[in-house]
Amino acid sequence: MKAARIYGKKDVRVENIPIADPKDNQVQIKVKYCGICGSDLHAYLEAWGLPTEPHPLTERTLPITLGHEFSGEVVKVGAAVTTLKEGDAVAVEPLITCGKCDNCRRGDYNFCNRVFAPDGAGNFLGFSDDGGFAQYANVKEIFAHKMPTGMSYELGALAEPTAVVFEAIKRSGLREGQNVAVLGAGPIGLLTALLAKIAGADNVYIIDVSTSRLSKARELGIKKTLNPLKVDVVEEVRKDCPNGVDVTFEAAGVQATFDSGLKLTRRNGTFQIVALFGRPVTIDLTNDLIMNGIRIVTTLAYNNSFSAVLGMLKNHQELFEKIITKKIGLSNVVQEGIKTLAVDKEQVKILVSPEE
Amino acid sequence: MKAARIYGKKDVRVENIPIADPKDNQVQIKVKYCGICGSDLHAYLEAWGLPTEPHPLTERTLPITLGHEFSGEVVKVGAAVTTLKEGDAVAVEPLITCGKCDNCRRGDYNFCNRVFAPDGAGNFLGFSDDGGFAQYANVKEIFAHKMPTGMSYELGALAEPTAVVFEAIKRSGLREGQNVAVLGAGPIGLLTALLAKIAGADNVYIIDVSTSRLSKARELGIKKTLNPLKVDVVEEVRKDCPNGVDVTFEAAGVQATFDSGLKLTRRNGTFQIVALFGRPVTIDLTNDLIMNGIRIVTTLAYNNSFSAVLGMLKNHQELFEKIITKKIGLSNVVQEGIKTLAVDKEQVKILVSPEE
Ligand SMILES: [Zn+2]
Ligand SMILES: [Zn+2]
Repeated sequence: MKAARIYGKKDVRVENIPIADPKDNQVQIKVKYCGICGSDLHAYLEAWGLPTEPHPLTERTLPITLGHEFSGEVVKVGAAVTTLKEGDAVAVEPLITCGKCDNCRRGDYNFCNRVFAPDGAGNFLGFSDDGGFAQYANVKEIFAHKMPTGMSYELGALAEPTAVVFEAIKRSGLREGQNVAVLGAGPIGLLTALLAKIAGADNVYIIDVSTSRLSKARELGIKKTLNPLKVDVVEEVRKDCPNGVDVTFEAAGVQATFDSGLKLTRRNGTFQIVALFGRPVTIDLTNDLIMNGIRIVTTLAYNNSFSAVLGMLKNHQELFEKIITKKIGLSNVVQEGIKTLAVDKEQVKILVSPEE
Repeated sequence: MKAARIYGKKDVRVENIPIADPKDNQVQIKVKYCGICGSDLHAYLEAWGLPTEPHPLTERTLPITLGHEFSGEVVKVGAAVTTLKEGDAVAVEPLITCGKCDNCRRGDYNFCNRVFAPDGAGNFLGFSDDGGFAQYANVKEIFAHKMPTGMSYELGALAEPTAVVFEAIKRSGLREGQNVAVLGAGPIGLLTALLAKIAGADNVYIIDVSTSRLSKARELGIKKTLNPLKVDVVEEVRKDCPNGVDVTFEAAGVQATFDSGLKLTRRNGTFQIVALFGRPVTIDLTNDLIMNGIRIVTTLAYNNSFSAVLGMLKNHQELFEKIITKKIGLSNVVQEGIKTLAVDKEQVKILVSPEE
């Protein structure tokens, strides 16, 4: 089968490789679509999240097939599989977990203690085991989620990035009727604003310096778009929310947005980090956090969220389809996919089809 | 009456001033004991937390009577007071609140939106209205908490600092049976470790470079004292808690303790800030927080906590009494009190008696 494998920094090769039969607890899926994520770009440019020694759970090192946002059709089932059968359409939760540590047992399996690096990165298919930029993939039964009847495979491929955002909203404790600010209108920021609306938030502000990203936000029904190059964001937000918003989502990941996000948050409010930060930030804990009782909540991946996410994708299909801005074939994954995503601000989600 | 009033940086005068009758919603108390807090030192040295213009709620500027950790006997009641009478022994919750804003209405009155400064400081008796370093004080009925029968006024004066810590533990979500690390064994760190034990925590580590503070901790029943000058703290904690502790309490407030606290916290655990930080800190959000799913929770003062705190003080009287290391008269409040606290690590809580 064809697969796009990473051998190291800036070295991705689309090549023919064999695929093993699924293990007892796995299903084999024919991949239909696999989205490209900002973290694929980091893996490509910096080998970010990739194992430098054999992963303690998968025992894998490079090369590894990239791709972790995928949907497909079950074509083979392992001997112990009882909940899926050939022909089922599934969305993949691409986690690698031990299933035995404290965090796995309590359901927080996204924080499995068996990680390959001290920094906890890399417990994902597409990083420490083969992922979805391939014609076929073997996936644990418990991580292959049956899609609702009639859902397209394109939407199924959105389940993973949507779950990232769903988890952030879950951890933030956002309630219907509350006010929200989202910093950054990239793919994750747009999904955050969209999900906050679906979760019943009242005022949802989305903030970015890119006018094309803000018009994408308006296309998704997010009316309160703010460009800090044109308006005083704090002043604008305070017009309707004089004490600040209940939950701020940081989906940009730099010092400037971090700082302005804190200024937008109400006393005793929540500052939810969704983005990864390329550099350390400096925080005046006493004056910016403590005196205003703000909590900083982080999020990484998701747990027990895919069934809700698939329901949401189904119920708001026409909105989520607007997230998909391009579809390409597997052989173009680097040039037309990963590299394009890095430079073209018009792109939100690019899907790769291994069938082409 | 005698009162210790602050006129500005390093200018505290013990002088004779009149006291007004209590307002309709106030009681007048004869102050029995008032503890000295680290924040009194900040007020003394840097005018920290003091109004630079009339406070929007109290309309007060300097001079102001210091002191916010006090107990006393009700000697007069305002016309609208119904729950207290002359002779009642009370512990004072020294907050200044509007009672009308969103946060006040939802019970989060420690985050009242009517604050005097953008940084939110100063909504306390002893900072923006007259406090407890005086023979008498007028206090709102709802903030004068009747002490349990038989409780000493000395213990009553511990209610406020204990409430600070109780609130931090409440906000951290600590549950019985969980593991805890406390950075810093000053008054707040000691109380945190003590309250974590009372809250049923399993392993409670307290970490400090001062051997005298660590022996005070052992006196309070905290057996797992760690001195980073002598042992590798992370290694020691990991012996019994291989994945780190559930909740870390930062009660020291500097970059070094902040960093080592993060290393002690388990994946998906809570980093609860209790101390104020004199300087900004630098955080590698991606690697130190996000990849490990750690949340940073802050705390400021307390709400709706005094009745539980008074119950706890009563039930563990013999332990809390060990917190009180010195008693002085009002005329010595600066020299023997505030200044001594700054230099003498043997001191935990110094109480001031206005009667002497
Ligand atoms: Zn695990
Ligand atoms: Zn208020």
